[in-house]
Amino acid sequence: MRLSRYFLPILRDTPKEAEIVSHRLMLRAGLIRQQSAGLYSWLPMGLRVLNKINAIIREEQNRAGAIELLMPTIQSADLWRESGRYDAYGKEMLRITDRHEREMLYGPTNEEMITDIFRSYVKSYKDLPLNLYHIQWKFRDEVRPRFGTMRSREFLMKDAYSFDLDQASATHSYNKMFVAYLRTFARIGLKSIPMRADTGPIGGNLSHEFIILANTGESEVFCHKNYLDFDIPAADTDFDDVDGLQKTVDKWTSLYAATSEMHDEKAYAEVPAGDAVSARGIEVGHIFYFGTKYSEAMGAKVMGPDGQERPVHMGSYGIGPSRLTAAIIEASHDENGIIWPDAVAPFDVALLNLKVGDGASDEACAKIYKALTAAGRDVLYDDRDERPGAKFATADLVGIPWQVVVGPKGLAEGKIELKRRSTGEKHELSVDALIDRLTVDA
Amino acid sequence: MRLSRYFLPILRDTPKEAEIVSHRLMLRAGLIRQQSAGLYSWLPMGLRVLNKINAIIREEQNRAGAIELLMPTIQSADLWRESGRYDAYGKEMLRITDRHEREMLYGPTNEEMITDIFRSYVKSYKDLPLNLYHIQWKFRDEVRPRFGTMRSREFLMKDAYSFDLDQASATHSYNKMFVAYLRTFARIGLKSIPMRADTGPIGGNLSHEFIILANTGESEVFCHKNYLDFDIPAADTDFDDVDGLQKTVDKWTSLYAATSEMHDEKAYAEVPAGDAVSARGIEVGHIFYFGTKYSEAMGAKVMGPDGQERPVHMGSYGIGPSRLTAAIIEASHDENGIIWPDAVAPFDVALLNLKVGDGASDEACAKIYKALTAAGRDVLYDDRDERPGAKFATADLVGIPWQVVVGPKGLAEGKIELKRRSTGEKHELSVDALIDRLTVDA
Repeated sequence: MRLSRYFLPILRDTPKEAEIVSHRLMLRAGLIRQQSAGLYSWLPMGLRVLNKINAIIREEQNRAGAIELLMPTIQSADLWRESGRYDAYGKEMLRITDRHEREMLYGPTNEEMITDIFRSYVKSYKDLPLNLYHIQWKFRDEVRPRFGTMRSREFLMKDAYSFDLDQASATHSYNKMFVAYLRTFARIGLKSIPMRADTGPIGGNLSHEFIILANTGESEVFCHKNYLDFDIPAADTDFDDVDGLQKTVDKWTSLYAATSEMHDEKAYAEVPAGDAVSARGIEVGHIFYFGTKYSEAMGAKVMGPDGQERPVHMGSYGIGPSRLTAAIIEASHDENGIIWPDAVAPFDVALLNLKVGDGASDEACAKIYKALTAAGRDVLYDDRDERPGAKFATADLVGIPWQVVVGPKGLAEGKIELKRRSTGEKHELSVDALIDRLTVDA
Repeated sequence: MRLSRYFLPILRDTPKEAEIVSHRLMLRAGLIRQQSAGLYSWLPMGLRVLNKINAIIREEQNRAGAIELLMPTIQSADLWRESGRYDAYGKEMLRITDRHEREMLYGPTNEEMITDIFRSYVKSYKDLPLNLYHIQWKFRDEVRPRFGTMRSREFLMKDAYSFDLDQASATHSYNKMFVAYLRTFARIGLKSIPMRADTGPIGGNLSHEFIILANTGESEVFCHKNYLDFDIPAADTDFDDVDGLQKTVDKWTSLYAATSEMHDEKAYAEVPAGDAVSARGIEVGHIFYFGTKYSEAMGAKVMGPDGQERPVHMGSYGIGPSRLTAAIIEASHDENGIIWPDAVAPFDVALLNLKVGDGASDEACAKIYKALTAAGRDVLYDDRDERPGAKFATADLVGIPWQVVVGPKGLAEGKIELKRRSTGEKHELSVDALIDRLTVDA
């Protein structure tokens, strides 16, 4: 992508409404624009990150056997009356009346609707287990939306819902998502720690939050430091292996880890002093097993092998990709801007032409752009008529993992500079060596 | 995907609420489920089609230089007051009041919001031309939603918005989208004809609808039959070639073509009798040039090369992927079910194991499934414990382009049946020949 033809509105000044660093950087780097309180447009560069995150989530959901569908954003109030949550949900629910005076709402979550879909089609234990998910916009009418996309009103959520005949099978479904979440966050470049959590308005008695540690995190968390070095389950994990999956989950819940809500001072005191971590954390995922809470209320029953009908056991599993984008920045930035992990970077390479119009520079850039693009790398080519300083600052601010700097001075010596955004490490290379490096090794 | 682990709720009976064939088939084939009047869930198979359509739209928008972003579904009423459309839009607009009594709405279209984004960042002609698009859910509160996703209340729309300094440049931007639309529909497998159209509530004085001919189409259209054989602009079309693009558009608007709204009996009478087509049509795309209607009202101005500020010239360009899914079925089905064009089929191949549990059949299916999947083909493997008749009926109903039929009888003679859904043509092949055929030729 040639920057001269792209839409990347960088802000010079830090917007004063932004209270946390991710919000500031997302506005300054032209990732998002606030349209109203808690409502954001995702500008082209921001959307690229969001889509990369979604793609990883999708791959890991599919790997764990979950099946994607897509439910509408608007729901009927009647469905929520069946579960009893229409009145219980309070003012966070955006309630709507349509032209025929029917009561509707903008879905804040989808337990009711997915249970309705399930009960319409599935009647037998033979069609279980089943896990259905979607990635769809939700709305929660926060009293005071803030922190940018970290706590917006309209937000994107991947929510999966599992259906099983009994608790044992439901536990296996829960474990599949537990492992899928560990893999998802690791692939995105984050170290997440599952922490026993309160179930809140979703209900149920088993729940984990996935927390990443970040100095600017919203909540206080306590855990054993060994979690940070645990191996992530492999890509070829057998999700049908009940015992194997249980062992993984047991390992990842064997040491102390709790958010302040669930914190137990006495248990924490038993963690050896050198191993105890007390830090700030950001919740990036939340999984729940809630048994038959919705299936009983809404009549979602299946015939068991014994010919008896019984309400299905359910769980739900959420990740907010729009929130996650902000969380990644909270965990990965410096004073010059964002440092994207490779897997979710909007572009792989920023190509900086320091002297547009200089024959040798233009030619070298064209060659590099063509070669990297042909190799499947996403390249943002800064071909604007701007001073070098502005190009360096933009590249650092938007945080693309590799910067390739091309200018007449270096070229006269046959050299191009390659800079790694995360470490600041610089190498001088020939054009051909650079192309090799970024098409083979990157 | 193994069908035994998939979620494909086929309905035996034709739902009585469905008035048109696409609606009936989408419900029966488990593509969608109605949640409330005009609100649909996209079940896994339906979502696959929707995503394939979106991917083609995206590729062609990007090829034509449009840049993707994503605006929220909920908008502030204030924005619509600026253009004067808040009061003008009527009851089709879903109006919402949030917890702070602020007036909001569910976006039925995005001219206002994109103009707001534009005016916030773009100040100079040097940043033009610019074309920004998104693919996002919209809501129009139809009095009587019907025909399934053909006229639903919540619907998906790709809407692009172009910004230019003057009318000449805006015409070029219009032509880019005109050509992109021809390519998009052709790639999806549809013959579309651009027809001069009324601009309606969007405003402006230049507009074309893209119409596909289908017996069950909602409106009457009149055109010269030669349009059906015109060459589609090539993938390597130079979208920066102003004259070349204009020539293509001139050719595609040279012969008579009009919807009943714009029909001119006198001009139509001049079409040679053998060339005149009067048929039913379905609108699948609509493009508009509306000059400075929104930019003047909302103060979206840029500095020209002469140092003078002037309101920017705009156009908007819409395709509804959710509606398009239904339109494709209207244009491509038979009495047994859907016939998906290859490019948007949910799966490329339906693999029917006629005797699950038979060693030879299971082995042959496993080999075929593995080989085709490795070659990047999407295979739906019917490994259910069902009778052959049910498997044939399901495969025909869901309309996957190729059916591979594996049973003990054929295998005893070293034969497998390959059936083309669209023509009914059948071939008998060895397992290896079949794999070759579907990995190389398909």
